Amino acid sequence: MVDSISLETATELIAAAEAKAEEIANPMVITVANSEGNLVAQHRMDGAWLASVSISRNKAYTSAALETPTHELAEPSEPGNSLYGLQTTDEGRIVIFGGGYPLERDGDVVGTIGVSGGAVSQDRDVAEAGVERWNELTE
Amino acid sequence: MVDSISLETATELIAAAEAKAEEIANPMVITVANSEGNLVAQHRMDGAWLASVSISRNKAYTSAALETPTHELAEPSEPGNSLYGLQTTDEGRIVIFGGGYPLERDGDVVGTIGVSGGAVSQDRDVAEAGVERWNELTE
Amino acid sequence: MVDSISLETATELIAAAEAKAEEIANPMVITVANSEGNLVAQHRMDGAWLASVSISRNKAYTSAALETPTHELAEPSEPGNSLYGLQTTDEGRIVIFGGGYPLERDGDVVGTIGVSGGAVSQDRDVAEAGVERWNELTE
Amino acid sequence: MVDSISLETATELIAAAEAKAEEIANPMVITVANSEGNLVAQHRMDGAWLASVSISRNKAYTSAALETPTHELAEPSEPGNSLYGLQTTDEGRIVIFGGGYPLERDGDVVGTIGVSGGAVSQDRDVAEAGVERWNELTE
Repeated sequence: MVDSISLETATELIAAAEAKAEEIANPMVITVANSEGNLVAQHRMDGAWLASVSISRNKAYTSAALETPTHELAEPSEPGNSLYGLQTTDEGRIVIFGGGYPLERDGDVVGTIGVSGGAVSQDRDVAEAGVERWNELTE
Repeated sequence: MVDSISLETATELIAAAEAKAEEIANPMVITVANSEGNLVAQHRMDGAWLASVSISRNKAYTSAALETPTHELAEPSEPGNSLYGLQTTDEGRIVIFGGGYPLERDGDVVGTIGVSGGAVSQDRDVAEAGVERWNELTE
Repeated sequence: MVDSISLETATELIAAAEAKAEEIANPMVITVANSEGNLVAQHRMDGAWLASVSISRNKAYTSAALETPTHELAEPSEPGNSLYGLQTTDEGRIVIFGGGYPLERDGDVVGTIGVSGGAVSQDRDVAEAGVERWNELTE
Repeated sequence: MVDSISLETATELIAAAEAKAEEIANPMVITVANSEGNLVAQHRMDGAWLASVSISRNKAYTSAALETPTHELAEPSEPGNSLYGLQTTDEGRIVIFGGGYPLERDGDVVGTIGVSGGAVSQDRDVAEAGVERWNELTE
């Protein structure tokens, strides 16, 4: 069994993210995954982009697969940098722009959250609302 | 814009299905999709099989893509019958055993529910709890 | 350049197939492909199943790839027969039930037609209306 | 049931685009999709590139999946910009150069058109002939 977060916790994080998305009036797709990058829960808010179904899932996957927030992957993946080409590896599941975050407990990644549906800064704000809720729950 | 069910309705159907899954003590993965088979919401109950993440999603997809409950597809797909080979078409997304159901409004398919995680009879019972909730909401 | 049928001819075959589909009151997806199985034209009639978009395309592909009507592939693909397992080969593009037909000129396959959207017998009737139109045009 | 454009309308848009392609003497592949990015009709003009079969379909998909003309996606997807890496997400279906356009009715995306086969400026000209026809029909 994977060290993961429960469905109950996942839906709490999603609710916190949805509240932020409503506040900024931008419908989002929000995915919570376990430490192996596999889905715990995913919600597509009414009117959110279709592409975001796949992108939010893969942001969550990427955060688990590389144990890194996705926005930290863009720069090393640029031409001339060390990970140039990263975004086409791992069967196309790696997303290198912001909106995916690991969720940690005692220094270990135990799950992730991935958000897509707006500008990258909006995706990050909404995902961070989920991360904050996670931090409150695990304090 | 797809004529679909809202995220709010989707989570109500999932809650009804989860209640049934808890009653029979078998964790399930439950997906609600729109009429084009794209995800509205998906929940993986704690302890549910990993394979069920994909299978429940594809049961929901299949019910939309063929406007049919998935359990009706098994017999015609058997060797010697008219649709033998159906289960490997459509890029591997067609599931021909039970647990996927269309959700109708005024005779049109407007969404679907797909459940996976137990014996097929259990998957069907849990999905049907979601369908019943749908019928109550649309009466 | 592939020995193929023109777009003009393809749309004539599709029109003949659509007329048959309307006659039997069953909306279909109709694809005409060239001798390499690549698309010339595809029409999804209003209300036709989503799954049929992929299935009709792959019936057309299969008829080109194996130079055979798809309904002749079911029996040899059954358990115990010589091509058992055929339907999962070629990256999942092989369809072994009826509705795909080669279009020949002077004994060579120069294109194909693939139809999906109803019972297999209906798919075949509609595809055969396209084949008949082809035969009229090439007499 | 998807709020979409009919096959009849789709073929009218394709005819308008084909007329433009003939005017500039560059054969194109033209796809019309519904609001979920699924095919309504696709025509490959005689002599059009094989790659354009997939590219035109995915331009139509992208315009639906992100509710945006595809030419607006190039700049934000460049190295150093916010969506760098977008083109490899969503299972490889996102196209970030021009030729895909949403088709709107009362402010909602109800379908899309995607064109490929020439220089991007030519693809855009041909697609825009389809969009203009759409605007005439929905005035």
